Order: sequence, then structure tokens, then C-alpha cells
Amino acid sequence: MNVYIQRASAILSKIDQLASISETTTGITRTFGSPSFLEGSRLIRQWMEALGLQTRVDTIGSVRGRWASPTKEARTFVIASHMDTVVNAGKFDGPLGIIMGLDLIEQFIQSEQPLPFHIELIAFSDEEGVRFHTTYLGSKVVAGSFDEALLDKKDASGTSLSDVIQAMGGDIGCLVSEAIQPQDWLGYFEIHIEQGPVLYNKAIPVAVVTDIAGQKRVEIMFRGMAGHAGTVPMQMRQDALCAASEFVLYVEQLAGNQSNLVATVGTLIVANAASNVIPGEVICSLDIRSNDEVILTKAYQLLQDASSQLGRARSVSVEWKLIQETASVACDARLTNLLATAIAESGYDVVRLVSGAGHDGVPISQVAPIAMLFVRCFEGISHNPLEQVELTDLAAALEVADQFMKKLITL
Amino acid sequence: MNVYIQRASAILSKIDQLASISETTTGITRTFGSPSFLEGSRLIRQWMEALGLQTRVDTIGSVRGRWASPTKEARTFVIASHMDTVVNAGKFDGPLGIIMGLDLIEQFIQSEQPLPFHIELIAFSDEEGVRFHTTYLGSKVVAGSFDEALLDKKDASGTSLSDVIQAMGGDIGCLVSEAIQPQDWLGYFEIHIEQGPVLYNKAIPVAVVTDIAGQKRVEIMFRGMAGHAGTVPMQMRQDALCAASEFVLYVEQLAGNQSNLVATVGTLIVANAASNVIPGEVICSLDIRSNDEVILTKAYQLLQDASSQLGRARSVSVEWKLIQETASVACDARLTNLLATAIAESGYDVVRLVSGAGHDGVPISQVAPIAMLFVRCFEGISHNPLEQVELTDLAAALEVADQFMKKLITL
Repeated sequence: MNVYIQRASAILSKIDQLASISETTTGITRTFGSPSFLEGSRLIRQWMEALGLQTRVDTIGSVRGRWASPTKEARTFVIASHMDTVVNAGKFDGPLGIIMGLDLIEQFIQSEQPLPFHIELIAFSDEEGVRFHTTYLGSKVVAGSFDEALLDKKDASGTSLSDVIQAMGGDIGCLVSEAIQPQDWLGYFEIHIEQGPVLYNKAIPVAVVTDIAGQKRVEIMFRGMAGHAGTVPMQMRQDALCAASEFVLYVEQLAGNQSNLVATVGTLIVANAASNVIPGEVICSLDIRSNDEVILTKAYQLLQDASSQLGRARSVSVEWKLIQETASVACDARLTNLLATAIAESGYDVVRLVSGAGHDGVPISQVAPIAMLFVRCFEGISHNPLEQVELTDLAAALEVADQFMKKLITL
Repeated sequence: MNVYIQRASAILSKIDQLASISETTTGITRTFGSPSFLEGSRLIRQWMEALGLQTRVDTIGSVRGRWASPTKEARTFVIASHMDTVVNAGKFDGPLGIIMGLDLIEQFIQSEQPLPFHIELIAFSDEEGVRFHTTYLGSKVVAGSFDEALLDKKDASGTSLSDVIQAMGGDIGCLVSEAIQPQDWLGYFEIHIEQGPVLYNKAIPVAVVTDIAGQKRVEIMFRGMAGHAGTVPMQMRQDALCAASEFVLYVEQLAGNQSNLVATVGTLIVANAASNVIPGEVICSLDIRSNDEVILTKAYQLLQDASSQLGRARSVSVEWKLIQETASVACDARLTNLLATAIAESGYDVVRLVSGAGHDGVPISQVAPIAMLFVRCFEGISHNPLEQVELTDLAAALEVADQFMKKLITL
């Protein structure tokens, strides 16, 4: 284990070094295309260069480092995560997978063993989608599914995505050619913090991801009748907030009684609110996720029906608007079993988790078999400067990843 | 009835004339001290003058018109309501009571019958408290309970209350002498729209007010733990919005099962809300009102206990902060019975209502017996340009008020 602690310690110091590059003095912010983002990108490229990888920055700004197999016609195995961050982020979400990838490749290089496949380490340029309210820009380009309509999207300052690409030196005409062709993929592996509290509560350092959950996002408007809080008797009210509250609790109850489902009302706004006015109009969000499309679709229908029903009982009208939906994605069974075996052989209980958060594996899964390893983070806190991973957990994750990569080579 | 319809019609046209004076082109806005407020005040004074009343504008800007009894040492009976409005108001809230007062006094004057008491008609300058977030400025001065600390209060533009008084030509040193001394009061009578839907739903034009409800206003903060909507399992959540929703429904249930109590959560804010974030912090308001202090105090305690209890069950902390409280005020039994008799003798069912809204009678009740007559308004809508009173309801209210005043004289 001691050697893993040493390697983990070196990884942590690289994570800290990257974290010191930020648009802000407190927390970490490196949004796509910003000066800090570009500085971080240069640092990652230097690390890849120092390792001897063939490096380049692709058209969408992802840093790509290649260690070639002597077998020219071999396929490519990608190890990747993202280098962009949310605003006021933690230091592990994204960088962990990139910097651990550097270490894993370093082991192969030091072993001087000829690889039966090419390895490409990718630091994706935009997974969080903070700047353009998009997701997976980097990995969609690599998967060959980038939608060129996005090029006209503008950020808050009016700069378009195509402006940003050009400012970074990219040629929009080359976007398509950045994709790894489907027949060239061997597989995809990402190490990421869990961003949830399951491993923390189970006191286990790592987990294998079985699926990335599908998601539906809904906007719901409850319209009752505003009135004077002092003068309208309780029995005559059409209180939109009471209707919304009933809905919030029904959402919680439904998801609480159903495994493989999470459901959240995250935003709730009372229109023209005042302490002495009965709420006449409430808008709230609904976010439901499951790895099982049948469960997701059924929950969606039950919640929609319940909202109408409880609205009717209160003479509160309910408008239901589907805003966004993504299908669930399954990790590759063979790679995932290999990873589970690596976990078990490293001496840890095999925890299989569904990722409720989206990851770059989602677009990649359309063209390649994917596998993901989750690492425990403190209390499941993420997207927050308090994000924390223990050194011993990094060491555990390294040991598991080493085993996994060794199995992959001898496959 | 025909004569009452005629008088009601004249009242309506005065109400419309006053409503045409507004700071805004749509809706009605005449907040304390504004140019439109002063123009409205001048019009009301002209109407009083035309009737032959001794008029003056007092230090706080209220318009006061006196019709003296030949008996110099007689006491004073005040008929009043307020002339200021909320922003985007209706035309009846306030002006109705002033303009009906003009008509009632006109009847006495025309009858040439010597009055056994002085009558003072007062158009209070500030009941709504929009400009300085205070209430009852006009009536507190008349009741002798004006708090001079308010003089330093500033409006949104930084102008203090004492600046406004001086700009209107008032001398702050004279504020105290504007009060009607306790021994000089015979009583106080106000006609006001109900601002609630009870009369509208009962299809009855008027009601006698028995009490003005006491009120407690509370701010409640629910603090749970924010988290990723996709990654935190339902069983591990500390969702502040779920806790708040449970509270909202408990508030509704408690007040629904208790007569003489209304309770409302009017504002609810999710801090740092996002559709994919489990709410970590929610702040909401609570407004509870009752004419029964025992019921009010008990409900307050039950709600506070319930909030702690439901918070504990969810590991959500609850902070409870009392923001404001006013005691309930009872209308005078003798005057109220006189008014009820006038209603019955005019041929209407006697509906006795507790006013959930506050009125100028609250400060006056500390020094004089008060009575209030409510007039039905369309669907109970108030503080809204849709505020509407039917002509026949005005006529009914006039008949009742006439009867009431006649009984008062012969008492």
C-alpha cells in the first residue's frame, strides 16, 4: 500500500497545483475558455509532455495526450475526465480523473512493456456547461456527436461558442475530424468523485458505476387565487403554495418508496409574494432520475397525475411542462465486471452504484464501451470548495485502477 | 330605496373623481405626501368646504371637517376613513368611508336639526403605510398615540417623515395638539369595504364588524443540507423545502380546523435554488390572525412546536423569529348593537364579521368606542384595480348608516 500512498500524494500535489489556478481568489472557478481555464489547460499539457505523450489541444479546447502502441492498427483506450469547473467549485471534480490517468500511464511507460492498444488521455474542455448552458462539449466532439447548431450559442457577455473556439486558435471546419472513429475505440475509463454520500456512509473508498441515470426535468405552475391573508376564510382559499407543498411532499414520498429513483423539487417561486397575501401563483421545478426507463416513465406519469388531482381538489390549476430529458446509459458489462473484479481483488467490498449525475461517459457510450470508478468524497459534498478526498482513498482508487488496467492488457 | 340609489350614485361619481387622481396612468396610486395625494386631499377639503364644514389639514396631513353642535361642551363623534392608497389600488378602499361620511353629514345639515354632539369627518393621511412602512399615521395622531421616533424614518428615496410633514406645511411641534382628548370623544364610525369574500359568498350587502383581529407575523428559517439532486439518495436527504412544505400544510390544517383563526404562509424563498440542487435553506413567512387572544396564542405555540418537531424528524434546523404582533381590538358593544339593529331594521340579515385586515379603528379604540360597517365587494378583491362595489350595495349601506346615525342622535 505504501507505494500507492506515495503515488496518491504526488497526485494530490498536482491537484492542488491545478486548483491554485482560478478566476477567483476564493473557491475554484475555471469555466470554459477563460484565461484561468487556458492556464490550467497549458499546465495539463505540460504534464502530458513531461511524460512523453504526443500532445495537442483539439478544436474544442480539450487537451489530448497519446501513448502509442507499437501495433499501429491497434485500437485506442481512452482515459479521461474534464478540466473545466462550475463556479466556486471544489478541486477534485474533473481533475481527479485526468491526473490519476497521468499516473496510470506513467506506470506503463516505466514498465517499458509494449502496449497492445493505444492509450489516449483526454482532459475534456467543457463538461459542466456553465458558460453556454450546454453539457459535454468536449466529449461530444470526441464521440463525433457535436451539434454544430451550438456554435451560435452566446454566453452572458454575448460571445458565441464559435468566437471562443476561434479565440483559442481552433478552426471550426476541423471539429468533425477530432472524433475518434467508432471502429477505433477499444474503450473508455473515467475515475471521478462520487458527488454523493453513499460511499461516505458505507465507509468504503471506491465503487463501480453500473449506469448513468436518465433524467427528466419539468417546470410546474400552480395557479390559484391571490387574496388578503387576513380576510379570506380558510375554506374559501385557493392557495397555490399549499397545492405546491402537497406536491413537494408527494414527490418525496414517491421517490422514497421506490428504489432506483430520486426526485427533487429544487426551485420554488411564489409570484408577487408578500407575507399578508395568500399565494396566487407558484412555479416549481421537478428533477427525476433513474437508471430504469420503465421506473422513470412511470414515476413521471404518477407525478403528473398527482399534480392534476391535488390541484383539482383545491381549485388550483396546474400546468406541466417537460423541459429536458435524457435517457439512461449503461456502462459496459465486460469492462464493469473487470473493474468489479479489480476492486474485490484489492480487498474492498464491491459497491455497484448508479450515477445520478451526468458524466462525459454519456456521449462516449454511444460509440464505445465505457467504465467508471467512483471515489468516496467527504459527506458526498461536491460543486463546493469543501469537496474533499482522503489520501488513503486516492491510494485505494490507484490500486484498483492499476489492477483494472493490468487485466485490460492481458485480456 | 330610490332616494338611496340617487345618493349612492352621487357618492360613486365622487369616488370616480377622486380615483382619477393618481401617480400612475393605470390603477390608482396616491401614497402619503405625493403630488397626487395632495391633489386628492385638496379635492376632499373642497367637498367638505362646499358642505359648510369648518375644515383644516392637520400636521400629519389628514383633512378634518367639523360640523359643530350648538352645545359647545358636547362631545365629538368622528366619521372617518383614509385617503391614501396602496400602489395600484382600487378606488373604494378608504375613499368609500370618507365620501359616505360627507353624504351622512349632508343629511343632518339639510334636516336643520340641532345636533347633540359635534361631528368631525376625517380623511386620514396614511393608513396603508406604503411610504414609510408604518401604519395608522393619521389615526395615531388623532388618538394621541403617535410615536415621535417615527419622524426620523426614511422613505425609499431617503426623505424622512419629518421632511414630508414640513413640506406639507406642518409644524412637528404641533403634532401632539392634534389629538382629540379622551374625554372629548363620543365615538368613532367607519364604513369600509370588506376586502374579503364572505359577504360576496353570502349574497348580503353589509355586515357589522365585531372585532379587528390580532395578528402575529413570524419569519421561519429551515436549514437542512444542500446536495446534488442526482446523487444523494432519498433516505439521506435533509431537504429544507420538504420540511417547509410540511409546515405550510400543517398551518393550513390547523387554521382550517379552528374557527376564529386564519393562518397564511405568504412568502417562501429557497436560498441558492437550482433545479438540480436539493434545497438546503428555506425562509418563509407566517401570518396568523384571530380576534381571540387565547386562540391566537395557542395557535402560535402549536405552530412553533410543530415546526421544531417536523424539523427534528428531518434533521432540519428551524429558526423562529417573531417579527410583529398586534393585539386584537373589540368594537364597542353598544355602538355595534346599534349598528346591528340598524341593519336588521333596514331589512338585512345581521352578519357579524371579524375584520382580518387592520383599520384606523385600531389606534382609535384605545381612546374611544368604535363601530365599523363593512360593505360587500366583488369576490372580496381589494388592493387591486378590480376592486368593485355595486351601486345597490352602496345604497343599502347608506340606508343602514342613516338609521344608525338617527339612533345615535336620539340615544
